[in-house]
Amino acid sequence: MKTFRMLVSLEEALQLIYGRMRPVEVVEEVCLDEAVGRVSAESLKALFDVPSFDRSAMDGYCVRAEDVYGANQFNPVRLRVIGSIGVDEEPKMVVKPGECVQVATGSIIPEGSNAVAMYEHTERADDEILVYRPVYPGENISKKGSDIPKDKEVLRNGDYINASKIGVLAALGISRVKVYKKPSVLIIPTGSELAKVGKSKSPVQVYDVNSHTLAAVVKENGGNPIIRDIVPDDEKEIEKALEEGSVNDLIVITGGSSVGVRDIIYEVLNRMGEVLFHGVQVKPGKPTIGAVFNSKIVLAMPGHPTSCLSNAYLFLRPVLRKLARLPEASPRVVKARLSKRVVATLGRRFFLTVRLRNGEAEPVFKESSAITSMAEADGYVVVPENADTIEKGDWVEVYLFE
Amino acid sequence: MKTFRMLVSLEEALQLIYGRMRPVEVVEEVCLDEAVGRVSAESLKALFDVPSFDRSAMDGYCVRAEDVYGANQFNPVRLRVIGSIGVDEEPKMVVKPGECVQVATGSIIPEGSNAVAMYEHTERADDEILVYRPVYPGENISKKGSDIPKDKEVLRNGDYINASKIGVLAALGISRVKVYKKPSVLIIPTGSELAKVGKSKSPVQVYDVNSHTLAAVVKENGGNPIIRDIVPDDEKEIEKALEEGSVNDLIVITGGSSVGVRDIIYEVLNRMGEVLFHGVQVKPGKPTIGAVFNSKIVLAMPGHPTSCLSNAYLFLRPVLRKLARLPEASPRVVKARLSKRVVATLGRRFFLTVRLRNGEAEPVFKESSAITSMAEADGYVVVPENADTIEKGDWVEVYLFE
Repeated sequence: MKTFRMLVSLEEALQLIYGRMRPVEVVEEVCLDEAVGRVSAESLKALFDVPSFDRSAMDGYCVRAEDVYGANQFNPVRLRVIGSIGVDEEPKMVVKPGECVQVATGSIIPEGSNAVAMYEHTERADDEILVYRPVYPGENISKKGSDIPKDKEVLRNGDYINASKIGVLAALGISRVKVYKKPSVLIIPTGSELAKVGKSKSPVQVYDVNSHTLAAVVKENGGNPIIRDIVPDDEKEIEKALEEGSVNDLIVITGGSSVGVRDIIYEVLNRMGEVLFHGVQVKPGKPTIGAVFNSKIVLAMPGHPTSCLSNAYLFLRPVLRKLARLPEASPRVVKARLSKRVVATLGRRFFLTVRLRNGEAEPVFKESSAITSMAEADGYVVVPENADTIEKGDWVEVYLFE
Repeated sequence: MKTFRMLVSLEEALQLIYGRMRPVEVVEEVCLDEAVGRVSAESLKALFDVPSFDRSAMDGYCVRAEDVYGANQFNPVRLRVIGSIGVDEEPKMVVKPGECVQVATGSIIPEGSNAVAMYEHTERADDEILVYRPVYPGENISKKGSDIPKDKEVLRNGDYINASKIGVLAALGISRVKVYKKPSVLIIPTGSELAKVGKSKSPVQVYDVNSHTLAAVVKENGGNPIIRDIVPDDEKEIEKALEEGSVNDLIVITGGSSVGVRDIIYEVLNRMGEVLFHGVQVKPGKPTIGAVFNSKIVLAMPGHPTSCLSNAYLFLRPVLRKLARLPEASPRVVKARLSKRVVATLGRRFFLTVRLRNGEAEPVFKESSAITSMAEADGYVVVPENADTIEKGDWVEVYLFE
């Protein structure tokens, strides 16, 4: 017996899932160079000031600003060079009036000095220099703690770790970071007609496309994909796959989720777990199911390759990124004119795949079962539920695929 | 003796490098699920049609379109069900006038039939159905080869492999792909004051930040980073590091590239290789060197962490992506009003790091030596060479960090 179904909107479907999922809690420690792109699972404070001493920001001479106050191109000030401080040396001198010390970028500022005259604004003769410009107190000096003061929180639990965060940790000598584990995503391909990629197939079989497109989307969005062996259209086998699979953080099952003779995934999910929604107002990809089983989210994707991949972007990507605690994906958008008239479906949001050619958006959507509906596209146009036609030449926003 | 130097623009600097580099040529074979984000090193053609037979696009009944031409809600057409075809079965029957065959999505279309009536538009009673809507010839049938015709080139040498390209290869049963090897990028940290992250340091030492921020940028842009041991400010040691390093595809050397007492990297590069430019009209990051050594590109980055990381985005990223044959990076851009007046430097393009707060772009640039000038920023504003001031409240475009 088929049941009357209420389709939900994309936003409702996502909210139903978000309400029942919890981001990963498991933590692992990785070395600093493995931490980029991961999410911090700890709060870290600076154990010391950076810089840890007043430091020269330039190659030049440490001076007393008051000594060179009146210096200019025509009346340079003469100072005596009493020594130099290498970048790996501790200063042993004190700068007194009329004196200076040669330093490099990064050298410790010696006592008595309060500014650095840049090399380029001086001229050296034996143990004396001529200074051609005044400096103000503190000029060309990076003060102790000015970059990162001691005790400052430099990394918070939940922070996304990018290159500059890596830099802050490196500046503090931190070589290992606790991060959240990547969610493991089990992909279950179902369908008695499916053949495994890389093996030979019989004339009636088709190769399993969805496991591989889903694995690619999982990988690109901070998850760890695991592809299960193909499961035939058999309730017992699907049950078994789900039961074994719920050790993972997320399960994606593909194939047979439309209302028809083969709609056994819905029945299994409904019996073994809790169905959150069955059918979403999107095109392609209407017959998508969201469910909970053993407190894990299960997404059942349509078997058609384009429906499945489109829904991987619409559902799997945001769900996975939330699970992984990653910031939302934000596709780039370009504006273009539509190259021909498109008739949409009232009541369903239409994700129209398009190719960009000579500044025009050219529809390439063939049918949901055609993987080339996606593969030949540069991105997609979102046609709202209440639009039935977009005219040739209308301006549209194209969301680019990465 | 210091030499008079002509600064080049960012664009000139990049063109000088591009003119002397060659994208990686080395090819490796990876399995399909490892190929996402890589660049194809081969041209692949479809060895068979996809679908490889006329296939039902719906669950329903294979009919002869002419039989149900006049069907409607009030005058359904009655057809006899002569059998069914599972998705893993070859049809053994021929559909004659007044007959139909039950099929599932993916089933092979039997001889004699030319359309599929959707399940939802029929009603079954024993071995008969009532059809409530007409279908046109070809309706709900995916024709053989309609997705990917045999012999079509589905992957070209140089194509970027995204999720939908993976799908096309999977549909053709292809499990291994030849891709270009990731460029190996040797990072050479120089500076006698540097301490290795993870080790203890003396009071005059500072931790090596740049190796780790550079490694992060390399990793995020398709390269394979290798961090060398820290090299002291010593010509012989730098020479040795360069000589050993030129087995890699790209060398990035950091520290001591400004014109001053410690400007030995320039001297070494000038003597051992060919300097393409020394100094770029950007702020921060002016004292950057581009050179060729043993026919490999060498980028010498300033030692200041913010200059180094900023230049990693401006120089290293585009150079590495070209080397790896990856498409150009395209940062996202948002518009915001500047929260306070900024004074720029005439003659140098200023990359002003900003934080987005309440829709305003708030400058966070402290100084080039401060890693927090980057770490606290959400992105940067490009201030052109010929601007000396941007006023508070001016609209600016913020290029977001990933």
